Amino acid sequence: MSDFDKREKGIESEHLASRSENFAEWYNQLVLRAELADYAPVRGCMVVRPYGWALWENIRNALDRRFKATGHVNAAFPLLIPKSFMEREKEHVEGFSPELAVVTIGGGEELEEPLVIRPTSETIIGHMYAKWIKSYRDLPVLINQWNNVVRWELRTKLFIRTMEFYWQEGHTAHATEEEAEAETLQMLDIYADFAENEAAIPVVKGRKTEKEKFAGAVRTYTIEGMMGDKRSLQSATSHSLGQNFARAFKIQYLDRNNILQYCWTTSWGLSTRFIGGIIMVHGDEKGLILPPKLAPYQVVIVPIFRDDAEQAKVMKAVEQIKDLLGEFRVHVDDREGIRPGFKFNDWEMRGVPIRIEIGPRDVANGAITLARRDQPGRDGKQSVPQNAVVPVVSKLLEDIHKAIYKKALEFRKANTHQPKDYDDFRQIIKSGWADAWWCGDAECELQIKEETKATCRCIPLDQPGGEGVCIHCGRPAKERAIFARTY
Amino acid sequence: MSDFDKREKGIESEHLASRSENFAEWYNQLVLRAELADYAPVRGCMVVRPYGWALWENIRNALDRRFKATGHVNAAFPLLIPKSFMEREKEHVEGFSPELAVVTIGGGEELEEPLVIRPTSETIIGHMYAKWIKSYRDLPVLINQWNNVVRWELRTKLFIRTMEFYWQEGHTAHATEEEAEAETLQMLDIYADFAENEAAIPVVKGRKTEKEKFAGAVRTYTIEGMMGDKRSLQSATSHSLGQNFARAFKIQYLDRNNILQYCWTTSWGLSTRFIGGIIMVHGDEKGLILPPKLAPYQVVIVPIFRDDAEQAKVMKAVEQIKDLLGEFRVHVDDREGIRPGFKFNDWEMRGVPIRIEIGPRDVANGAITLARRDQPGRDGKQSVPQNAVVPVVSKLLEDIHKAIYKKALEFRKANTHQPKDYDDFRQIIKSGWADAWWCGDAECELQIKEETKATCRCIPLDQPGGEGVCIHCGRPAKERAIFARTY
Repeated sequence: MSDFDKREKGIESEHLASRSENFAEWYNQLVLRAELADYAPVRGCMVVRPYGWALWENIRNALDRRFKATGHVNAAFPLLIPKSFMEREKEHVEGFSPELAVVTIGGGEELEEPLVIRPTSETIIGHMYAKWIKSYRDLPVLINQWNNVVRWELRTKLFIRTMEFYWQEGHTAHATEEEAEAETLQMLDIYADFAENEAAIPVVKGRKTEKEKFAGAVRTYTIEGMMGDKRSLQSATSHSLGQNFARAFKIQYLDRNNILQYCWTTSWGLSTRFIGGIIMVHGDEKGLILPPKLAPYQVVIVPIFRDDAEQAKVMKAVEQIKDLLGEFRVHVDDREGIRPGFKFNDWEMRGVPIRIEIGPRDVANGAITLARRDQPGRDGKQSVPQNAVVPVVSKLLEDIHKAIYKKALEFRKANTHQPKDYDDFRQIIKSGWADAWWCGDAECELQIKEETKATCRCIPLDQPGGEGVCIHCGRPAKERAIFARTY
Repeated sequence: MSDFDKREKGIESEHLASRSENFAEWYNQLVLRAELADYAPVRGCMVVRPYGWALWENIRNALDRRFKATGHVNAAFPLLIPKSFMEREKEHVEGFSPELAVVTIGGGEELEEPLVIRPTSETIIGHMYAKWIKSYRDLPVLINQWNNVVRWELRTKLFIRTMEFYWQEGHTAHATEEEAEAETLQMLDIYADFAENEAAIPVVKGRKTEKEKFAGAVRTYTIEGMMGDKRSLQSATSHSLGQNFARAFKIQYLDRNNILQYCWTTSWGLSTRFIGGIIMVHGDEKGLILPPKLAPYQVVIVPIFRDDAEQAKVMKAVEQIKDLLGEFRVHVDDREGIRPGFKFNDWEMRGVPIRIEIGPRDVANGAITLARRDQPGRDGKQSVPQNAVVPVVSKLLEDIHKAIYKKALEFRKANTHQPKDYDDFRQIIKSGWADAWWCGDAECELQIKEETKATCRCIPLDQPGGEGVCIHCGRPAKERAIFARTY
């Protein structure tokens, strides 16, 4: 029996895999069932379905607003990059060469120089910036693009790591190191602000280690969020590229004294991976819980009736309520031949923040019944007079945002521990984050990974000060770091 | 001396190539100088610069609004398609095979099956629709995507024909042929409405000939616009695909009688080529004239002052006017060290519909000076009291839209002729459109092309009725067709 037949007959499909028992399977099933994405015929690629893409469009709009408010503009750089470009920056080529998709045939003929599909665009943008930037008056250049990139990944997972993914990549060029660093940190703040105030995801802002930083960066900053399985997800990154790409691509400007200088550049990105974060932070056993500010539908209205006479009255009220709620993203589920109870479960699974039920009794009472997704069951239900629906929905969306943020923050706090010693550390990182003094040595980091499968997710910007001893090697340590498993 | 040095010193750069004498060179220079786009390092690819991309974003928003209002949703299908997919629909493979970019290496290894970069997405979307569609209840499926595609073109021209380009491609599946045809025509109407009411470009809606239709379509509809050099630009197309792709990819549904049927599908697209159309329809010897509804900046404000005291007064007024005009897209050109006269020319070249000049005398009079781009010189200038600026700008933007639309329509009418005979036809298509009775025969069309370089741009939907004789072969003809040169 197909899923549709089940829906048609009002038969619930089998339950989702258990989130508490098999988080990874719960995640995969949920992405497919909620129709966020599907597997494409090419291994490792995904199709982002309309419900998932609407979520991405809301993410895009929320970020784009912030980018434009801080002086950035959008542009589009090409998909195809001469292979030789990738080889100009030493660390960049080492990092990305193994992941390249290479075009060798075009228009039926073998190409003289192979082209790579961009895995990221520092090289081709560097080439163009070198052409455009002449004088200090041309700086800063603050450009972003919303695009697709391809990285040949072997272990893929819908949204979290796919061969092709969608993202924005900002690329800026500055006259001084200080300006570039300030830009890098500004964009990190924007990502954190977006994560917390739009997606209701608490994040830790930090610096990546040498081992974990972007190939070609001087410093990489990250926002890390704790997922429902207590792993850490790198949710967006911002890179201070120093003069590495400026030297490789000759991005130079004449300063006020007419002396030729290399620019200082940055890049920063947030991808469809973030959707995976939203699923894994907020979801529960029943399915998705979408943050109200990003949810494709903030409110779903389910009409309830038994016969034509009831239907006419109920649908009239439904239309009125929908009109009243014009400022919100509202969907009316008027599918025929499907029981309301099935619709309730369906929209709970798909994470719509507020459900409004309207039946004959509601109509008679001039009321609606309102259910909040983050509090399933009776506690989250209330009857609301029809004329109060706008302020109630408005406030409730705010309340849900705050409630799911608070829940995620408390979960992270409850599962972040400061280990007493390395044995304690090993226990902690089996299910949680370890916040520990660490020496910062690459070899020490490698050993920790081999021994525990945990990696240094970041060295938080917010440090307690003082000194300690490295949790692993016992040498003096000046900074605390977050260690955790990741994806 | 770099362009910037020239600007800095207030020296006008050399004039644009003459539009009347060398239209093609005028076009190329203008795209580069107005910073709409630049050449990418890979032959045939372009970089769409921020000014050009802002124009595209406005095009996208205007279309996307129309798509969503007619029930369409957005999604994202993969860039990479198994090569074998391209071979399933006979005409599709013939049409697109010569234009494919092929990925043969991924992650350092040769691929077992090569992947092609999508030149268009009927095949991969057909594959997914076959998976998703089960029952008549799942229909219609109305999905669009905004994306990039690659076609290995040999003769390229910025925006008009580039190897990679940006577009939207809508793909729908329906239960009946009638529904699919209605969708195809609805989308054609939406394109025409967009072209006329947003871009101020008059278009002719028509059907493509067998030779010119989309590879795999049953019928292709087009909107054709007359460019400033009197050629015709295919500005958007909408395809009725019949059951061709449904059969090739097994897109089937169970009808109400539980019988398995093939779907009827459509596809339709408008690309960054449209930007080329805007440039070529409206531009003049001084540069771009952007349609007010799509222009990245609708108004540019140029402050004029000689000393610090004047500057303070003028800039205060500039800020006030900018605030008043909050509902419009306004840019203040406060670049230092550049003469106002240079700025005037610069923004005229870049096509901003309205220029506001504010100098000390304007401030003293509580007025501003307003110049419209489509009427350079004194006639287009007026002094407006500051408190009237909002209604005046609002009306003026409307007026400019109407004026440039009217001008383009009159130009098309003046350069569209009904030939008396084939000799007349040959003269007409040297500089204009020929509107002639035509037999519809493919061989006849081919001969016309060989003899005149003109192709059948479309058979207009709006037909006079009656019958005539074919302008070329003299056989009976039931329809009139537009013949013209294209790009």
